[in-house]
Amino acid sequence: MKKIYLADIPLEDAQKRFQTALEEAGLWQTLGAEQIPLDENAIGRVLIETVWAKISSPHYHASAMDGFAVRAEDTHGALETAPISLSCGSVAVYLDTGDPLPDWADAVIPIENIEPLSADGNISDDPRHPQIIRIRAAVSPWSHVREMGEDMVATQLVLPFGHRLRPVDLGAAAGCGYDKLDVARRPKVAVIPTGTELVYPGDPLKEGDIIEYNSIVLAAQVNGWGGAATRFENIPDDFEKIKTQVVQAAGEFDLILLIAGSSAGSEDYSSQIVEQSGELLVHGIAVRPGHPVILGIVKKDGKSTPIIGVPGYPVSAALTADIFVEPLLGKWLGRSPFHPHTIPAEITRKVNSRAGDDEYLRVAVGYIGDKTLAAPLSRGSGVITSLVRADGLVIIPRGIQGLQAGEQVSVQLLRSIEELKNTIFVIGSHDISLDLLSQFLAPCQRRLASVNVGSLGGIMALKRGETHIAGAHLLHPESGEYNLPYIQEHLPGMALRVVTLVGRTQGLFLAKGNPKKIQSLEDLIRKDISTVNRQRGSGTRLLLDFHLKQLDIQPESVNGYDHEEYTHLAAAAVVASGRADCALGIEAASYALDLDFLPLFTERFDLLIPEEFVLGELLKPLFELLEDPRFRNAVDTRPGYDVSEMGQVVAVLSGTE
Amino acid sequence: MKKIYLADIPLEDAQKRFQTALEEAGLWQTLGAEQIPLDENAIGRVLIETVWAKISSPHYHASAMDGFAVRAEDTHGALETAPISLSCGSVAVYLDTGDPLPDWADAVIPIENIEPLSADGNISDDPRHPQIIRIRAAVSPWSHVREMGEDMVATQLVLPFGHRLRPVDLGAAAGCGYDKLDVARRPKVAVIPTGTELVYPGDPLKEGDIIEYNSIVLAAQVNGWGGAATRFENIPDDFEKIKTQVVQAAGEFDLILLIAGSSAGSEDYSSQIVEQSGELLVHGIAVRPGHPVILGIVKKDGKSTPIIGVPGYPVSAALTADIFVEPLLGKWLGRSPFHPHTIPAEITRKVNSRAGDDEYLRVAVGYIGDKTLAAPLSRGSGVITSLVRADGLVIIPRGIQGLQAGEQVSVQLLRSIEELKNTIFVIGSHDISLDLLSQFLAPCQRRLASVNVGSLGGIMALKRGETHIAGAHLLHPESGEYNLPYIQEHLPGMALRVVTLVGRTQGLFLAKGNPKKIQSLEDLIRKDISTVNRQRGSGTRLLLDFHLKQLDIQPESVNGYDHEEYTHLAAAAVVASGRADCALGIEAASYALDLDFLPLFTERFDLLIPEEFVLGELLKPLFELLEDPRFRNAVDTRPGYDVSEMGQVVAVLSGTE
Repeated sequence: MKKIYLADIPLEDAQKRFQTALEEAGLWQTLGAEQIPLDENAIGRVLIETVWAKISSPHYHASAMDGFAVRAEDTHGALETAPISLSCGSVAVYLDTGDPLPDWADAVIPIENIEPLSADGNISDDPRHPQIIRIRAAVSPWSHVREMGEDMVATQLVLPFGHRLRPVDLGAAAGCGYDKLDVARRPKVAVIPTGTELVYPGDPLKEGDIIEYNSIVLAAQVNGWGGAATRFENIPDDFEKIKTQVVQAAGEFDLILLIAGSSAGSEDYSSQIVEQSGELLVHGIAVRPGHPVILGIVKKDGKSTPIIGVPGYPVSAALTADIFVEPLLGKWLGRSPFHPHTIPAEITRKVNSRAGDDEYLRVAVGYIGDKTLAAPLSRGSGVITSLVRADGLVIIPRGIQGLQAGEQVSVQLLRSIEELKNTIFVIGSHDISLDLLSQFLAPCQRRLASVNVGSLGGIMALKRGETHIAGAHLLHPESGEYNLPYIQEHLPGMALRVVTLVGRTQGLFLAKGNPKKIQSLEDLIRKDISTVNRQRGSGTRLLLDFHLKQLDIQPESVNGYDHEEYTHLAAAAVVASGRADCALGIEAASYALDLDFLPLFTERFDLLIPEEFVLGELLKPLFELLEDPRFRNAVDTRPGYDVSEMGQVVAVLSGTE
Repeated sequence: MKKIYLADIPLEDAQKRFQTALEEAGLWQTLGAEQIPLDENAIGRVLIETVWAKISSPHYHASAMDGFAVRAEDTHGALETAPISLSCGSVAVYLDTGDPLPDWADAVIPIENIEPLSADGNISDDPRHPQIIRIRAAVSPWSHVREMGEDMVATQLVLPFGHRLRPVDLGAAAGCGYDKLDVARRPKVAVIPTGTELVYPGDPLKEGDIIEYNSIVLAAQVNGWGGAATRFENIPDDFEKIKTQVVQAAGEFDLILLIAGSSAGSEDYSSQIVEQSGELLVHGIAVRPGHPVILGIVKKDGKSTPIIGVPGYPVSAALTADIFVEPLLGKWLGRSPFHPHTIPAEITRKVNSRAGDDEYLRVAVGYIGDKTLAAPLSRGSGVITSLVRADGLVIIPRGIQGLQAGEQVSVQLLRSIEELKNTIFVIGSHDISLDLLSQFLAPCQRRLASVNVGSLGGIMALKRGETHIAGAHLLHPESGEYNLPYIQEHLPGMALRVVTLVGRTQGLFLAKGNPKKIQSLEDLIRKDISTVNRQRGSGTRLLLDFHLKQLDIQPESVNGYDHEEYTHLAAAAVVASGRADCALGIEAASYALDLDFLPLFTERFDLLIPEEFVLGELLKPLFELLEDPRFRNAVDTRPGYDVSEMGQVVAVLSGTE
């Protein structure tokens, strides 16, 4: 019977075991060199030998100007009122910039500082070839001369080994006499995806299929770190096929990345294959996300090849490569490991973490007012967008149970600080018009980070000072007013401006063709009709409550009122699967699932903005876009959107009320 | 007659003129799209279309574990003491991780949480295929289910246009239904070097030849910024040949970079070619280094192609590309311009700058104690190593005459802060053993920045708190003691440690074969012998003074005593050119110029280190290396070096004396 439970070992133990095995196999060192031509393709390669200057640069004393080579001492005493004349040929010779200085000369007088004379003492009409030059100022030795070795002196250190070549480095190496460079050869990495459920991007999809893209991400990472990745075809969960492929790859490659399928047992396949074809060092590491990592050595014909069994979940896969592949490639190439830029920040909410694991938490980083905040993103190991959105990583080390809200943490940045400081946070309810806004902001050097936590969640984020803007469409059931009653309740005393973004249509998702003939909200009380609701605190639920009240419909009489979903799409999906007949939501979600849509109401989606940000530079381009016909038009052409009130200031709350 | 003087215009005027002309030609916008396969080669490409999710990910409700699909409500009431049994097939179905959830189910129970039973109620030996499962805890809806759209919801924004693709982005795009991507096509850039004096790297060299590497640096820059560079062969200074090549390139490329030769008139060639084949917009820009930049448009068969005349000096060339090419490629690709990370720092010395120019000053950045210092590097436009060594750029804007020592400046970083914080500064006299030390420090995550300002210059840098270490070999002519008398004079009260680095041999550089039969220092008074001296404050000059005094030789009786050179190599070069017969210096410099060498004295080269740094983490690896046999051996095998006293503490000055 297969093992179901893994015994995870701590990350540093796993790293140590792997390194020791590589040391024993003679593989914990640079892999080898190759000589390449010194041209633009050398960029990013790592020097395996020191570049000592072979020749000086300049390799001779060179004129730095178009002018005349002279002996400085011959010019002593020359004055505006007492010029000195020098005969060309013997004590003055014309040089173009870059020409070698004659041995007898030690200075150059720029051509614009001489008077060119012919033999008869008149001004010559060829300033470069006169008989005599007349000068009215002395020059000091070595003026306007580029001395030999000014840039580089033969034998000096120019570039150290282990250096990753940049454009100017190539110039320096060429300038000191190189036309080839000895660089570390690129480690060859086999990337092998396995799993019967895998399909290629673009293949037709059925339920249960997984689009295989881990191999693309891993190959791109490997190439970016200086390796040379080869992606293999997807292999189904067939023990012998996978084993054959692994053993064959061990002969040709320096490293094998074997990506486990997600179905039961595929990871056990990996570990058994490693066990049978070499040595299994580690199976399971106490790191999240990542867990079922396998480390081993495959042996073939006396050659040892390290193998890393990479978990199939995409975040686990990418982080496993960060943790194990990047440093190994660095070692093989002889360069230093990458050091991410690290900044202190305040974590926005409590995070529980298993004390036994090192956790790599993805965070969004916000510069909000005078605070630097790290907001945890989805922790799911299947949520690749958590890495796409991440501004940084917070490592919660083993032995720590988690983080308290407000705790100081260290964030390894994945974006530049400049980019982060130009990021506008919008937290709360999400709308597609915010995505469009983000597109229009990009050319204005602004990034928009939108975090979907529902309208009320956005108001609470404002209260805690964690966002520049909250997006909200909260209809107050008693007053029929949008947002303001909730602001008064939760944000008393905050100086705040409420600006309308859009009006948008809410309506009912219906099965294709509307088989139950649902015509209005009143149909929700029909006994043959079931619905699905949104979670408490969401704007859509409040909208439903308001209209049910208007129609004097009791929630209890609505079949499915207590069935809660957390997003428009989740609600639509329930309708698509036939588990409910209808659900209230926005039109866009009906398109996503190819449902019919019955438009019912227009609601107002507002931006809530503290006054301290209203006047700042950061939001200026945003306010300009709300007036920009191109942006308005882009929103207006989406079905279900009304931009007539866009940019209207609904309220200015002074904060002293 | 050719123009000799340029009328430089301000940088922003030049940029505006260029942009306006490109706008009029319809070229100030993205150049166009191409569709590429979604694979690892898409890295670094810029999206020209927004990636909206085509499908949700997961595209179905998927089991997150190996386990049994159930209806959560069927598990209500299950307790340790009151288990519930569910029949497999109807209300419980086994799923592998990733399998689709049946429509009727809304939760998964992990396999390790069930008891598998056969029909007779006994434990089944196939936990994945029992007849009945028994559970002892209830589950909540959607537990252990990856809901459809957990990662991405169809129609949502996944990646904005203008985004430069990273590895994880490829995963996200594949996961939401893409197998191809629309990206900006790479702008084609012709890089054309001109100049009769140019030779290729590796070609034999004679005086006056220039090794052409600007085209390599420019091509590497262009490729790094997302363009596709083509390097042309060197063209001699032949007006018609250059013009023919430019006009031909205008038909095939999006941008032409025409690199001027350094000889007289070659830059005028460029401007005249642009004038004759299109429109000359700018000739000469008030920016240093850079000056003679040319901007224009070449017109051929109705197609307009921008052309940039790039100055031939390598620093000017690289910075011209930074200023004009990078933003243009950014515009054409539809991505944001790069934003360098900028930090505040204190400039270490007064810098004069022409008020009419924007100056791009290269600086070394040092974290010394609690100060962040920016030390100006060579300002020569021919000194490519100033860009290799530069940690950052300080822009001195027009209208400012320069900077005062200690003034606060803003530095655009070229290296990461982490790297800079791990940098050890050694200022003062330079020695090749410091280059070797730098090599040995690299694997210890330390960078050594060595700045050569002479021994006394190093002591003054310590005094101003601008370095971690000073390198000095100052012999006191009166006492015959090294360094300590100078420390007592210039650094009274500083807590300081003096540690010996090496002993090294000083001697006389002699013409090959020693034609004048120079045998000792006494020969310097021979009437047929001339020498060359080093500058005041240099250790080598003090060494000469000491030994002349010992020999009772008056400086006046030494022919050439007043002829000063600033480096060992410059002095050796005077000997090599025959302008002097000998000069005192270190052995390595004689090798660089293929001279004979007469060894005379061993001198002590010390490291002077303030106590505050002696105990810090930064210098720890350095102290370890001074004891490391591998490092000692690497120095020892160099001719003229003695490591027997390496690491010996010569003095500990308490600072209270």
